Amino acid sequence: MTVEIGRGKSGRRAYNLDEIGIVPSRRTRDPEEVSTAWQIDAYRFELPLMACPMDSVVSPATAIQIGRLGGLAVLDLEGLWTRYEDPEPLLAEVTELDEQAATRRLQAMYAEPISEDLIGRRIEEIARAGVTTAASLSPQRTARYAKAVVDAGVDIFVIRGTTVSAEHVSGRAEPLNLKQFIYELDVPVVVGGCATYTAALHLMRTGAAGVLVGFGGGSGHTTVKVLGVAVPMATAIADVAAARRDYLDESGGRYVHVVADGSMTSSGDIAKALAIGSDAVMVGSPLARAAEAPGRGYHWGSEANHTELPRGARVNVGTIGTLEQILHGPSTVPDGSMNLMGALRRTMATAGYSDLKEFQRVEVVVADSGSPAGRR
Amino acid sequence: MTVEIGRGKSGRRAYNLDEIGIVPSRRTRDPEEVSTAWQIDAYRFELPLMACPMDSVVSPATAIQIGRLGGLAVLDLEGLWTRYEDPEPLLAEVTELDEQAATRRLQAMYAEPISEDLIGRRIEEIARAGVTTAASLSPQRTARYAKAVVDAGVDIFVIRGTTVSAEHVSGRAEPLNLKQFIYELDVPVVVGGCATYTAALHLMRTGAAGVLVGFGGGSGHTTVKVLGVAVPMATAIADVAAARRDYLDESGGRYVHVVADGSMTSSGDIAKALAIGSDAVMVGSPLARAAEAPGRGYHWGSEANHTELPRGARVNVGTIGTLEQILHGPSTVPDGSMNLMGALRRTMATAGYSDLKEFQRVEVVVADSGSPAGRR
Amino acid sequence: MTVEIGRGKSGRRAYNLDEIGIVPSRRTRDPEEVSTAWQIDAYRFELPLMACPMDSVVSPATAIQIGRLGGLAVLDLEGLWTRYEDPEPLLAEVTELDEQAATRRLQAMYAEPISEDLIGRRIEEIARAGVTTAASLSPQRTARYAKAVVDAGVDIFVIRGTTVSAEHVSGRAEPLNLKQFIYELDVPVVVGGCATYTAALHLMRTGAAGVLVGFGGGSGHTTVKVLGVAVPMATAIADVAAARRDYLDESGGRYVHVVADGSMTSSGDIAKALAIGSDAVMVGSPLARAAEAPGRGYHWGSEANHTELPRGARVNVGTIGTLEQILHGPSTVPDGSMNLMGALRRTMATAGYSDLKEFQRVEVVVADSGSPAGRR
Amino acid sequence: MTVEIGRGKSGRRAYNLDEIGIVPSRRTRDPEEVSTAWQIDAYRFELPLMACPMDSVVSPATAIQIGRLGGLAVLDLEGLWTRYEDPEPLLAEVTELDEQAATRRLQAMYAEPISEDLIGRRIEEIARAGVTTAASLSPQRTARYAKAVVDAGVDIFVIRGTTVSAEHVSGRAEPLNLKQFIYELDVPVVVGGCATYTAALHLMRTGAAGVLVGFGGGSGHTTVKVLGVAVPMATAIADVAAARRDYLDESGGRYVHVVADGSMTSSGDIAKALAIGSDAVMVGSPLARAAEAPGRGYHWGSEANHTELPRGARVNVGTIGTLEQILHGPSTVPDGSMNLMGALRRTMATAGYSDLKEFQRVEVVVADSGSPAGRR
Repeated sequence: MTVEIGRGKSGRRAYNLDEIGIVPSRRTRDPEEVSTAWQIDAYRFELPLMACPMDSVVSPATAIQIGRLGGLAVLDLEGLWTRYEDPEPLLAEVTELDEQAATRRLQAMYAEPISEDLIGRRIEEIARAGVTTAASLSPQRTARYAKAVVDAGVDIFVIRGTTVSAEHVSGRAEPLNLKQFIYELDVPVVVGGCATYTAALHLMRTGAAGVLVGFGGGSGHTTVKVLGVAVPMATAIADVAAARRDYLDESGGRYVHVVADGSMTSSGDIAKALAIGSDAVMVGSPLARAAEAPGRGYHWGSEANHTELPRGARVNVGTIGTLEQILHGPSTVPDGSMNLMGALRRTMATAGYSDLKEFQRVEVVVADSGSPAGRR
Repeated sequence: MTVEIGRGKSGRRAYNLDEIGIVPSRRTRDPEEVSTAWQIDAYRFELPLMACPMDSVVSPATAIQIGRLGGLAVLDLEGLWTRYEDPEPLLAEVTELDEQAATRRLQAMYAEPISEDLIGRRIEEIARAGVTTAASLSPQRTARYAKAVVDAGVDIFVIRGTTVSAEHVSGRAEPLNLKQFIYELDVPVVVGGCATYTAALHLMRTGAAGVLVGFGGGSGHTTVKVLGVAVPMATAIADVAAARRDYLDESGGRYVHVVADGSMTSSGDIAKALAIGSDAVMVGSPLARAAEAPGRGYHWGSEANHTELPRGARVNVGTIGTLEQILHGPSTVPDGSMNLMGALRRTMATAGYSDLKEFQRVEVVVADSGSPAGRR
Repeated sequence: MTVEIGRGKSGRRAYNLDEIGIVPSRRTRDPEEVSTAWQIDAYRFELPLMACPMDSVVSPATAIQIGRLGGLAVLDLEGLWTRYEDPEPLLAEVTELDEQAATRRLQAMYAEPISEDLIGRRIEEIARAGVTTAASLSPQRTARYAKAVVDAGVDIFVIRGTTVSAEHVSGRAEPLNLKQFIYELDVPVVVGGCATYTAALHLMRTGAAGVLVGFGGGSGHTTVKVLGVAVPMATAIADVAAARRDYLDESGGRYVHVVADGSMTSSGDIAKALAIGSDAVMVGSPLARAAEAPGRGYHWGSEANHTELPRGARVNVGTIGTLEQILHGPSTVPDGSMNLMGALRRTMATAGYSDLKEFQRVEVVVADSGSPAGRR
Repeated sequence: MTVEIGRGKSGRRAYNLDEIGIVPSRRTRDPEEVSTAWQIDAYRFELPLMACPMDSVVSPATAIQIGRLGGLAVLDLEGLWTRYEDPEPLLAEVTELDEQAATRRLQAMYAEPISEDLIGRRIEEIARAGVTTAASLSPQRTARYAKAVVDAGVDIFVIRGTTVSAEHVSGRAEPLNLKQFIYELDVPVVVGGCATYTAALHLMRTGAAGVLVGFGGGSGHTTVKVLGVAVPMATAIADVAAARRDYLDESGGRYVHVVADGSMTSSGDIAKALAIGSDAVMVGSPLARAAEAPGRGYHWGSEANHTELPRGARVNVGTIGTLEQILHGPSTVPDGSMNLMGALRRTMATAGYSDLKEFQRVEVVVADSGSPAGRR
């Protein structure tokens, strides 16, 4: 619905996930008979879940483990693992920084140059374990490091920034031509963030296998306070899902995957994101709470160490259980932070759906976030 | 009102009870001349109130007392009273568990097997006191224990789960065929939760005498955080009340009772639930605050002890007075927690209605829950 | 706007004062040239302000003082001043009660019988000072004590309850026939509360000189939690103002005054109530904060001492200055609690209006109470 | 959208900045290629930023510094700098006042008379540094002191009050005739606040070069609590921007600048104000947090020292960095308080716009302020 803000400006009313509630249909099912499988390109996963390329979440070790548990972890190739031979002491140091100093120290740590050699070795380490490999670069550095990434044998290439457009206008250098880049690449590309129908449609036309919905950032990001930029997640997903449908028709059958990226902190949020139309989710903070997480109970995104304009904070998310417990349970807490995939299976069963594609059609309601859905 | 969440998804705007305010008509009445009587099947009650099948609320002793005070208590046949010969030590232990350990210990307590012998003896104990008996099973266990329940002479049979549908799809075993089950049963059945017009209509067609509106759970339930499932209560009641009216026509006169279950914590909430169209309410936490309550000031629902995915917490609700004071006053506190039925009588009188069926037609307003209705 | 709560029930969206903002017109004026005068029947006041009939606000002494400062105080004839020869020790005791005991002690204090002799003497005491006298009874006691009130020479008779209707239905005794009562009375009657167009229109047809909008109660009242009854104040005023206009036409020229009663805690709230259409306001807690207030910094309404169902609490509002400062300034605090009438004059000047009747036409906006109007 | 508050009153739904989110287009740009330049009359600024005429923000020294950093500072000619030869001791004293005493002491400080000699000397001091000079008077004092201001060689004359109208009605003295005053003046005039299409259009017709949108006041102002007056900022800007467009047509080409004044506390807010249609912003509290700010970490507006009706408080905003850091970075905090202009440049680049005039066309969404835009 478009509302008139004032005589000179109108805008659409947009909704966040905590304004949404999933409505069960008139059927119910057994949770055991529900499938949460997700397939993108030639790769099939038991879970519709990507782990965010953040140093607090994905290391080569957790990438392997998440892969074995059924998901897909994305290694940040501009993070500590490609800047340092041994980042463990630095990761340990982050947990000890006091609040005031954290931003400055993160800015310094990430000023170290990226090593192409390390890019190759990290990807190979994950691939050797036999799981699907995924790794990410920002659009600014994609052209420069792409060859190293592909040569290392990555399976899925992720290009991820706050906002990635199909058409970056720049007078200074030759900007990345996404369409040509993807066309020439042999591996499937997942690209984003984006948050609107039009931006997503243009990204789909570049040949991407998937698009990330949202503006990324860790759970402590402050994009709206710093930039004023915000598209509430439920609306962003529903818009991009419509672009997927229209592009499917326009392209004569190319199905581009929609991956909700960020703004999900509980199993209920994940279920909502899929219910509204995403094919999979990319989560960070829920996994940063694992005992194995490299962040050791702390969590930060790359936006937190920007030299000129940091747009996020290191946050203490705590440690609640193993990666396996967080993904598959059993849960010992009632707050939606453990057994994320068991919860999804139960939501689908309760609502009466047996696979994710059907589940995208489930009825939802919109409620006042202060009196909601959100609470009960 | 249907709102467009984004281009690919729309949803209805749904309302919770704290967004509702009851509007007095142009007449007023004497509270003494108002009737709060409720009749379902052959059973008549002075109060339109069922007590939730939760171990913190209903024991055989409180079931008898609630019956004598004019309401209908439902015993949970999958709770401690049918698993242990003497559950009192366990009930006492729950009050002493620390926050962290509570969920795990509850999971263990409820792992003890259910005894058919105890099912029979608990129901008979209540029946001997001369009050109407009601007892509940989950749909999963209804087929297995129904005979023991009926043989014990229960008056009203309750089938209650987070979501109960008329059509449970399962490939593993023969699922409960509700319609056939109810047809063959000699006692009236109240079944739920459900939260939509369609789901309720299908439940009504099974022959149920009443349907429970809501997804159950104690006041500490976390359904929306864990499952993302939510239908705000005011909208759920209004939808199911419409199904009652339409089914009355379709069936040529069968009036199926609508019982709002959960989300009501004060006398004002109870009045709103009835004003929007329910015939009776099922409450837990307000009664868990009685001196006689088996929970001794603590309150938890069966969702809190799920082995794999607990979806609620044990909460400390405190003790405020006797069951009689809570239901019939006099009240010594101004917060809507005491004299629940005296308050209802006064609301009806203030609004100008003399019986519950008429009161369902009272005018209501919708207000911002942050600035409302909810506050003034 | 009517919204569908669910298929079986709809309700109007209603607004509270904190969702409203006053919009200046394209003219401005000098505050000194603005008139806040209000005339009802033969009585003219410099301020459009009635003081609530509450023991924490109006004693014979403060009634006289408020009258001299330009307003109209209403003495509660069912309060301590008509039950005790000397209520001062009791008033002092209230300030010392602890939170838990307060409701019970208030219930006991107000159980003392009302004395007709004291009714007469209190009114005469105020009249002797030369100010306009006003006093209130509940509808239940109006028939019994009205003669004593009139004989004492009251100028304005107030009948006030949570909800007062033109048609009280009762099988027990002969209920008050408002129309006949008012017809036979020689003094103008102000009656309420009411909160809807229809209820107000019927009250106007009884011959009342004014109607009170709202459900009364001190600022600590809990009507919505206990009874579920609520009509947000901005909507209630706008509805009743429409009834005034329609009744003016229907009656061929009788102008019945609309007095917003309750829900106003700052000078901004008072300005909003007048802007939306009330002719005057009735306030309690802002005056309970005066050094001279009989409540000595505490505030409670008669709903707080109901024997069976108390619906309000004694609240500590503190003491901030003299009655004169609160009404006429100068203010030394920026929170809208002092110089209530200077603030109103400035609002009218800023908005470009020179008298209250014109000011009722000022433009207003509706804003999100969490992000509003309410804050900036 | 106009909503019916009740039968007798309707109002437009109005929006605040925290309900707004900026939506990136399908293009992105390099931040380095974005221009934030702003030109009004003959004066060009690198930044679309005016500093509020408040003693806690603008002294002659900070006016010079802000000018050199690319913005335009406005000196309050009714503040301490024109009342005292050396206001530094008073500024230092303000920081030491306790909460209770602050309002009274501010009332006393500002009771000192204004010196025409000091008006001249302060303006000349700023002009000598070679930056554009701007200074403000209230409409009440404009006629009296205008000559001294112009004689001192001010470049831009600002007339600023809570609400300034083109037609002030007064019976006492000859009120300021804005149209004639501006016509006779040789320097461009910026005038406000105003908040509606009509009020702004009339101000534009007086010949003003720019209009201030909002009701002014420091970040601690309490206009809505004291006066009930409020027009949420996003709606106010969008309305006044429409007046600019219509007046451009009506006048055959006069472009009157729209300057959002107040309600912006972060770089995100500034970006939103420009996105909705303002040409520049006037900010106070963000600059009061500079190490060089005369308020030394405290902030107050002239409304805080009104003799009869103070409408704002002195607030402690703290000190976070130098003026240069606050305007141009680098930022070491992620909360939108530093590198205000670097953030704006990045927002424009992310959204795909290269100059401010184009950026006014960016798409925005409206979100629930409790679940929003506002948070993510």
